[in-house]
This record gives sequence, structure tokens and C-alpha cells, in this order.
Amino acid sequence: MSYTLKQIINATGATCAGQYDETLVINGTATLEAAAVGDISFLSNPKYASAAKETSASAVILSKTIEGLKAVQLVTANPYLAWAKICELFAPDRSAHLPANISQTASVHATAIIGTGCHIGHGVCIGASVKIGNRCIIHSGAVIEENCTIGDDTEVHPNVVVHYGTSIGKRCVIWSNAVIGSYGFGYAQDGARFVRIHQLGRVILEDDVDIGACTTIDRGAAGDTVIKRGAKIDNLVQIAHNVQIGEDSAIAAQAGLAGSLKIGDRVKVAGQAGFVGHIEIGNDSFIGAKAGIAKSFPEKSNITGYPARDFMDQRRLEASLLKVPDLIKRVSELENQMKSKES
Amino acid sequence: MSYTLKQIINATGATCAGQYDETLVINGTATLEAAAVGDISFLSNPKYASAAKETSASAVILSKTIEGLKAVQLVTANPYLAWAKICELFAPDRSAHLPANISQTASVHATAIIGTGCHIGHGVCIGASVKIGNRCIIHSGAVIEENCTIGDDTEVHPNVVVHYGTSIGKRCVIWSNAVIGSYGFGYAQDGARFVRIHQLGRVILEDDVDIGACTTIDRGAAGDTVIKRGAKIDNLVQIAHNVQIGEDSAIAAQAGLAGSLKIGDRVKVAGQAGFVGHIEIGNDSFIGAKAGIAKSFPEKSNITGYPARDFMDQRRLEASLLKVPDLIKRVSELENQMKSKES
Amino acid sequence: MSYTLKQIINATGATCAGQYDETLVINGTATLEAAAVGDISFLSNPKYASAAKETSASAVILSKTIEGLKAVQLVTANPYLAWAKICELFAPDRSAHLPANISQTASVHATAIIGTGCHIGHGVCIGASVKIGNRCIIHSGAVIEENCTIGDDTEVHPNVVVHYGTSIGKRCVIWSNAVIGSYGFGYAQDGARFVRIHQLGRVILEDDVDIGACTTIDRGAAGDTVIKRGAKIDNLVQIAHNVQIGEDSAIAAQAGLAGSLKIGDRVKVAGQAGFVGHIEIGNDSFIGAKAGIAKSFPEKSNITGYPARDFMDQRRLEASLLKVPDLIKRVSELENQMKSKES
Repeated sequence: MSYTLKQIINATGATCAGQYDETLVINGTATLEAAAVGDISFLSNPKYASAAKETSASAVILSKTIEGLKAVQLVTANPYLAWAKICELFAPDRSAHLPANISQTASVHATAIIGTGCHIGHGVCIGASVKIGNRCIIHSGAVIEENCTIGDDTEVHPNVVVHYGTSIGKRCVIWSNAVIGSYGFGYAQDGARFVRIHQLGRVILEDDVDIGACTTIDRGAAGDTVIKRGAKIDNLVQIAHNVQIGEDSAIAAQAGLAGSLKIGDRVKVAGQAGFVGHIEIGNDSFIGAKAGIAKSFPEKSNITGYPARDFMDQRRLEASLLKVPDLIKRVSELENQMKSKES
Repeated sequence: MSYTLKQIINATGATCAGQYDETLVINGTATLEAAAVGDISFLSNPKYASAAKETSASAVILSKTIEGLKAVQLVTANPYLAWAKICELFAPDRSAHLPANISQTASVHATAIIGTGCHIGHGVCIGASVKIGNRCIIHSGAVIEENCTIGDDTEVHPNVVVHYGTSIGKRCVIWSNAVIGSYGFGYAQDGARFVRIHQLGRVILEDDVDIGACTTIDRGAAGDTVIKRGAKIDNLVQIAHNVQIGEDSAIAAQAGLAGSLKIGDRVKVAGQAGFVGHIEIGNDSFIGAKAGIAKSFPEKSNITGYPARDFMDQRRLEASLLKVPDLIKRVSELENQMKSKES
Repeated sequence: MSYTLKQIINATGATCAGQYDETLVINGTATLEAAAVGDISFLSNPKYASAAKETSASAVILSKTIEGLKAVQLVTANPYLAWAKICELFAPDRSAHLPANISQTASVHATAIIGTGCHIGHGVCIGASVKIGNRCIIHSGAVIEENCTIGDDTEVHPNVVVHYGTSIGKRCVIWSNAVIGSYGFGYAQDGARFVRIHQLGRVILEDDVDIGACTTIDRGAAGDTVIKRGAKIDNLVQIAHNVQIGEDSAIAAQAGLAGSLKIGDRVKVAGQAGFVGHIEIGNDSFIGAKAGIAKSFPEKSNITGYPARDFMDQRRLEASLLKVPDLIKRVSELENQMKSKES
């Protein structure tokens, strides 16, 4: 694949600084360090300006022109967004590998409704009364149990399991081996023995939700587990029964969300963070990596640590704890001085 | 599905407080907040009594009658257990979707023995000499390698992999994409290079064991990895080679159990806890979320923290550490006072 | 399976202490405690010498002879390596279950090239232009998307997903339900909304790499994600886009490696450790269990804790923190003494 500079400019809306050749051919994308002639690269953080000066890339997307750059400079207010659009141009066309038909080895129940232009891969299993929208891709080995609905343009990667009754919106992507709609970890006790509580709710993924590989999302116990529009979930995340995740929130890999947790809109959760159940995290909050969150926090919280607290408090506390070994010495010294005073 | 109040009472053994209509129809289950007329709900913790008073549910399961409740009150010593029984009544009947036959697309080895009333789903692979009991459900895409045995009434969800030689008891449930019997992480070193130690043991799951989605259980190195009767394992848990988990223990999501760890009976492990190998946790212990356990603990331990220690010790330690910033000031003040005394 | 002592000696290069019967038959392997007559066991740590004295094993591999042992003593400088060789002798021969042919239910694209002696299992899906070397085993339900290459003697376990363009070396083992080549978690923001950044790089696994069950390895964003020769990855590990892992490194279960992390050669990472992105860990380092690593460390670092620091510093710090409750009392006492001095 290759594009002219003009095509790149049209796709991104960037402005070209100075004179330039609209027919310049861009063959690929690369980081500033790895780029070769013919590549386009990007600079989102001005502190890497020196790398931009040394790059062999033919063009660079950036927010402000830089002196002394050999590459053509494409200026835009949001270089990273422009980069996303460029990467979309260069994403491989897989349509020949994923033709719009139903594999003969797929098992599609007679009552399932499959939209137009869908690819249903090798060995896929689609249960009764499933409704799949238009232009969906259900990759090899995926299992969609009865009574699920999947919106237009959604992609379900190989060996994903979507349990019965799940509702998935439009333009979602579910990565390989993710599990949607397994039972929540709910048991009553009869003496020491556990008695399973059948989980009667569903999982609802709204539009534009991405789910990472090997992520597990449990169905609700009584109500539903809900992931709202535009939320993005990374790999190996555990989302327990009745969790709610707000719009445009992002949950990084290996985070664990216990039952009935409610996460607001535009919340960012870093990797390996863990939440107890039945708490709320307000809109626009940020949760640090590996944080252990045991209570609710209001909107715009920035928290970290185990147990988690305000980011600046945690940093100050950590700094003070580093002084403890010295503090012990100082207290011993004071005690000695006091003792010598006494005598 | 719907049931009369009489059927609910019969199923749970609850006692109805005051006068009531045995023919009252219950159509579904819901939380107190979400319930509509016709629903049944439950109150296990008396502190939510006000929610019970405001619920629209037609009936509520609880341990003690409450004044001023509109709903019919069903009283029982263990409301959560009664709730489990009610949820079982309302669990969807999937039998039409999972007929008692072997899919033509399944590969079942000629030497495998399948009990009566089993459903073997689309694309399943069952190896040589496998023995599967009666009324088992092996869902689409599951792989059961050679020489495994599976007891009566066990359910293996889609795309689960059960490696060769694994023994699974009766009434177990293995959730989607779990892996049972992979190799433990065992290597010798030949200089810097790792040399694989073939893992010659098996995995044994006794009766009534549940395994969560995407959980991985490694086979034993020399002896076996054993999960005893009634133990429940949540999603994304790692259980290394030669771990033993006692009866009626519960391990929450994303916990990590290193090799040869021995967990007693009726132990509860919260999410994201991690254990080093070759230690023992005594019966009836509780391990807090995200705890990092580096040594053995006796029975009835209640531990938390990283490194993990007794729960109350940890709470006290955490409280004292919060005083360190102030302590630093107090010591500086003392030093100043001491200095002024000197001079 | 059984072997004579002579065969064991030939396979391991161990030396037999004292007189012995070369025709002694060894039937199996076991730990010192579990061994029965006819078993071989091993002692790698001299502190378990008493267990060796009490074992019923017929032979024991060890680094130095012990007085008073009933078992035949096989002496070798590296008993654990000898043990690996013995376990290889006793590993079950699965060749009858995994015949060198392509299952009729597998979907192999016309343009795929499969080497000689390969087993391609039930329901496998192999895409266009895939190249698979000789003597590979691709187990049931595995999906190998277009343009992947897999070297000789590599084993891909059931239901693994290898996304398009992945390169896998020789003698690798990918355990069940692992996912190689999913998209990294990369998004630009258009206001609050996330815009996917197509991930244009690949995953490269060099020779002799093992990947654990349910481990996820994301493809590179612009460049590639690379795991070098001989590195071993355990179960449920997250490896983000553009991570590099050096030769002969080992990453234990549930560790999380964020984007563009660079891990050197011969590094050992314990379970549940988490790394932020864009840092470097030098060669021959050791990272403790559950460590949270937020900055780069030089070669031969031994680090632990959250946030992670030098192992000995962390131990000293933890010991000093345990003294804080007492320190608070001592400071109060000093303050009282000071006050009584004042008055």
C-alpha cells in the first residue's frame, strides 16, 4: 500500500508547512527512530523533537513546526488522532481472507438471523434465535450461544465465547478467547458447602466497545452487567457480575473489577488495578497501575496505591516512609541525649 | 417461567409471615431496587431494610419479619440459600439447545465411552480412552484429550481444553476457555539455557468443583495437582503444578497459586491474591484481596497485605504509617528543643 | 515405560556411587516423599537430605553422595538437569494420538505450505500463505491466520489463536488458549471518544520460546513485539505491543508487561509482577513476585516491592516500617520528658 502526500493530507486534515510535493509517495508508517525514506512518522510529545530531527521519515505529523527538519511537516492540533487515521489507511485489507459468506463447517441454527455481508468462519457455532447485524465478522471457532444479538459491523475474533442472551452493540471488537456471559462467582452456603446461585442476568455491551483477548465478563446475578458506549477493555481483565462501566472509559490489562462495582464515564484504569465490589468510581477519574481500591471515590479522583488514596497523598506518604530508617536513628539519638541530660 | 407462592415456599422451606395468597404468581427475580410487581427479591443484610420497605417486589425472602413491608415476607434462617433455590427455579431451561446427542461435527475417538443422556456439541474433540459419565454437557469447541475421565452431570463450556489424563468428578462446571492440565512452568538450566522438565503428573478435580473462565490449572510435575470436593475457582486464576486446594475452599478471580502450595479446607481467597510456592495455608483461613503471601499460615488465619500478615496487625500498621509525616515533624521539633536546651 | 539403571545413566551422564546392578529396573519418577520401590527421585537441595534417607525410591539423582541412603545414588553436577533428562524418558508417547496427517475437518488454505510429518488436528483453521515447518503439531481447534510462519518441531496446543503475520520459530510450544498477535491497546482521543489506532506491527517469537496457557501477546503498533530465543513465558501473562524480551529470560504467571517495555537477556520475573511501559530492565536481573516496576533498572538488578526498589533496600525498609508503631510511642515519651524538663 502507498499513498500520496495529498491523500494523507486529505485523510487527516493536516496542514503542510512550507512548500511540498503533493505527489510524494508514502509507503508505510514507523516510529521516528525506525522510519526509512518513504515512511511517515509522528511526534506527539515535543520533548522528542531531537528524534524528529534525526529521522529518515519522509513526512512527520506534529502539532507545531520544528526548525531543521528534513521531513515534510504535517501540522495538526491532535497529531495522535491524525496518526490513527493514517494507520487506518495502512491497515492490511483482510477482505480476501474473510469473504462475506458462511463457512460450510459453521453450525448456524435455523432460527438465527444473519445480516448481509457477514463472514462466518470455519467451525463457528451460532445458536437459536441469534441475531447478527450487517457486515459482521465472526471468526473461526467462535461460539455465539442462543438468544444473543450482535449489532452491525462488529467483529468477533477466533475462539471467543459469547454466552446465551448477551447483547453486543455496533462496531464492537471482541478479541480472541474472550468470554462474555459466564456465570458470576455467586454461591450461598449450606453449612460449609457452596450452593450455586444461578446467574439470571445478562451482559450488555453497547456500541463501540472493544474487549481484549482472554478477558472475562460475567453475566449479572439478577440485573445485568453493562459496558457502555465507547468503553475499551484490554486483555485478561476480569469483570464480575453486575459491574457497570461508563461511556468512553478504558480499563487496562489484568485489572480486576469485583461484583456490582460502578465505574463512571471517561474513567481510566491502569493495569493490574483491583477493585472490591459494591463501590463507585466517579466520572473522569484516573486509577494507577496495581492500585487496590477498597472504597468509593468521587469524580475526577486521581488515585493510586494499596490501599488506594489520592495520588499526591500517596506520593507524599511514600516519600515520608523512606525517611523512617533515618528517623529511627534520630529518635535513638534524642533518647541518648535525653538520658545524658537526666544523669 | 412463573411459579405460585406455594411452589416457592415448597422449594425453599421458608415460612410465610401473616396471611397470604398461595396462588400469588411470581414471574421473576430481582434486586430490591430493580424489582417490579410480580418479582421476588431478598434481604440478607438487615441494614438494607429501608430498601425492602420501598421495593415493588411482590415477595421478599428474609431472615426476620420487618414492619411496614408491602411485599409478602418469606422467612427463613438462611435467606441467601433460599435465594439460591429460587434462582434455580428461574434458571433458563437450555435443554432444547443442548439435546442429548453427539453432534455430527464432533470427533469422538472409537475407544471413548460416552454415558447416556450426554450432549456433545459442535466441533468437540474427544480423544482415545476418554470416559464421560451420564448426563454430561460438553459444549462446542471443547477439547478433551486422551485418557481423561469426567463424572456424571458435569458441564464443560465452549472451547475449554482438558489435557490428557485429567480426572474430573461429578457435577463439576468448567467455564469457557479454561485450560486444565497444561504443563507446569518447570525448567532446569543448562548454563543459561532452559531445559524443559516434562510434567508427568495429572490434574484431579474432585466432585462439585467449579472452574472459572480462562482459568489455567497446570498438571503436576511428578505427583498431581488436586482440587478437592466442592472447591470453587473463579475466572483467570492461575493454579501451578502440584498445588492442592482443600474441600469447600473458594478462590476469587485473578488469584495466583504457585507450585506445591497447599491450601486447606474452607479457605477463602479474595481476588488478585498471590502465593509463593511450597507453603501451607491452614483450614478456615481468609486471605484478603491483593495479598502477597510469602510464608505459611496456620488454620483460621485472617491475613492481608503485601507482604501478608494478620489482618488486625496490618490495619494497625497501616494506621501507624499514616502518622509518619507528622512524626517526622515532631522529631524535628524535639531536636530543635534539645538543641536550644544544649545552648 | 521402564528403563534399566544403565539406560538412565547413559541418558543423564551421572556417575553411580558404589556398586550397583545395571539391570535394576526403574518404572517411574516421583518426589522423595511419594516414591515407591522402582521409582527414581532427585535431591537438588542438600537440606532435604533427611527425606532422601527415608525415601522408598530405588534410585536418587543428587550432586554429592549421602551416608545411609538405601537408594542407588546417581551423582551429577547438575541434578535438576539430569532430572529433566529422566523426565523426558518417562514423558508419555502421544504419537498414536497425534498422527502425522491433516484432519479432514481442518480447513487448510490452498496456498498454505505444511511441512512433512505434521499433525494438524480436528477443526484447525490455517489461513492463506501460512508456512508450517516439519514435524509440527497443531492441535484441535487452533487458528493460524494468514501469512504466519511456524518453524520445525513447534507445537501449538488446542484452541490457540495465532493472528495474521506472526512469525514463530523452531521448537516452540504454545499452550492452550494463548493468543498471539491481538491488537495492542492503542487509541487516540477525539474529544472524549477513543479512536482505534490500527496496530500495524507483528509478533515475532524466536526459536525455543514457550508460551503459557491463556497468555496474550499483542502485535506491535508500528514495529514488532519480539520474544527472543529461549525465553519462557508462563500462563496468563500479558505482553503488550512492542515489548521486547531477551534471550533465555523467564516470565512467571500473571505478570503484566506494558507497551514498549524492554527486558534484557536471562532476566527472571516472578508471578504477578507488573511493569509500566517504555522502560528497560538490564540483563541478568531478578524481579520479585508482585513487584510494581515504574522505572528502568540496570543489569543484575534484584528488585522487589511496590514501587519496586533494590531487594535489600526493600527488606530494610519493610523492617524499619514495622518499628513505626513503637517509634510513635518513643516520640511521645520523649515529648513528655521534654515537657517535664521545660516545666
